[in-house]
Amino acid sequence: MRKGDAAIGVFDSGLGGLTVVREIAALLPAERVIYFGDTARIPYGTKSPDAVTRYALQATAFLSTFNLKLMVVACNTASSLALSAVSEAACVPVEGVIEPGCRAAASATKARKIGVIGTEGTIQSGAYAAGIHAIDPACEVHSAATPLFVPMVEEGRISGEVPRLVAEEYLAPLLDKGIDVLVLGCTHYPLLRGVLGEVAGPGVSLVDSAVTTAGRVRDVLAERNALAAAGRPGQHRFYVSDDPAKFAAVAGTFLGDAVGEADWVDIERY
Amino acid sequence: MRKGDAAIGVFDSGLGGLTVVREIAALLPAERVIYFGDTARIPYGTKSPDAVTRYALQATAFLSTFNLKLMVVACNTASSLALSAVSEAACVPVEGVIEPGCRAAASATKARKIGVIGTEGTIQSGAYAAGIHAIDPACEVHSAATPLFVPMVEEGRISGEVPRLVAEEYLAPLLDKGIDVLVLGCTHYPLLRGVLGEVAGPGVSLVDSAVTTAGRVRDVLAERNALAAAGRPGQHRFYVSDDPAKFAAVAGTFLGDAVGEADWVDIERY
Repeated sequence: MRKGDAAIGVFDSGLGGLTVVREIAALLPAERVIYFGDTARIPYGTKSPDAVTRYALQATAFLSTFNLKLMVVACNTASSLALSAVSEAACVPVEGVIEPGCRAAASATKARKIGVIGTEGTIQSGAYAAGIHAIDPACEVHSAATPLFVPMVEEGRISGEVPRLVAEEYLAPLLDKGIDVLVLGCTHYPLLRGVLGEVAGPGVSLVDSAVTTAGRVRDVLAERNALAAAGRPGQHRFYVSDDPAKFAAVAGTFLGDAVGEADWVDIERY
Repeated sequence: MRKGDAAIGVFDSGLGGLTVVREIAALLPAERVIYFGDTARIPYGTKSPDAVTRYALQATAFLSTFNLKLMVVACNTASSLALSAVSEAACVPVEGVIEPGCRAAASATKARKIGVIGTEGTIQSGAYAAGIHAIDPACEVHSAATPLFVPMVEEGRISGEVPRLVAEEYLAPLLDKGIDVLVLGCTHYPLLRGVLGEVAGPGVSLVDSAVTTAGRVRDVLAERNALAAAGRPGQHRFYVSDDPAKFAAVAGTFLGDAVGEADWVDIERY
């Protein structure tokens, strides 16, 4: 087996990380992805750093049963809180979604004032602020935890009066600071892009780290001479820790195209 | 040790079940409660019946390490989906929160039209409708899943425009049917009592099963001659599966009085 034949392991607290799979598939159609969504324990964003790290290490142990060449922590909360623990535990390079988001934001801002929204865990970790300041120490970073967005998206409530009101409340303090870039620091948030764009206004660019993460995956694989041979269509595999039937119903929203079935994993055994 | 000296085990997906502890403590101040809140895997309401049952059995196994005389499944979702599994696994009588809520609702309705709100898991189980129909087969039961209420309460967003709008949307179909009783089928919902009462209007009584569950606990213990000796103040103990520090911050909202510390349990080992 060639190095390039190995798969890319991707995990998330649930199905939001499928937005990252979608971008990887669009950019690198020959790559094969093994996806794990921890749907039995979602959300991670309101859980403690210890719990998130424990869960991320179980996901790593599970994904490590496959022949991988790279692992992507597609969950912003797990990327913020557990990336170093996962990197230590994994036998392959590990990429998170924070750093690509920081790079994209830092290069997009002209005002050097960046807004970041995410779960409580992501925002409290300070990972985005640290990542942006590592690139541009003078850049202002204004953050807000927006805990209602994930359950709103999961309910399918992505437009209308309630999301707009909630978005207005959450974004007002950031907009008051004059941000011109808003990082969507959670894989669910791109589904609220319409409302967020409307509330933030045309002067604010929205950064979705799924796109930039896919670019980073390409670069790392190219560097290591580990890209899949072109032409072969990637056959992805999906695993979840709760009922796979729900996966089929929801996955289309995130992944765009019809995706196959998912299999159940008893993740607590890892 | 007298039979009455044993404790009452109570578990919930998180801290909402503390409203049941509060009512037990108010009605039976000499009783000792051992509480387990599965904060590392909350919420249960959006998870599959299999996952909820697995979690409820782990909670049962953990609580069974104590000397109990009764177990209360304070979580509506777990009561709906896993009560018989828990009853089989436990060595003591088990009470859920559904049946007491059904009794209270059936005796409160004059129109014989009852509304029930709860999590997706609770509503899809049909447990409230079945319980009410067992008492009064001709009573109309109109149900609605209200998935945004738990995250709203957990964010502390219990009044204002957003909760009112969301409550209006969720309750409109039930109010249109002419209900005169609304069962708050989730331990978090009593914290939204203000908004729900306002939206439902004065013609609709709100039923909070925490109060009626405490009454049921008293009856069962009295029947079995297992009430604690009066006069001794009950010393409760609290356990959670995620960071205990968060417990202290939130528990007061539910339990009213200052509560002690909680200890961490590695629930996946049970």
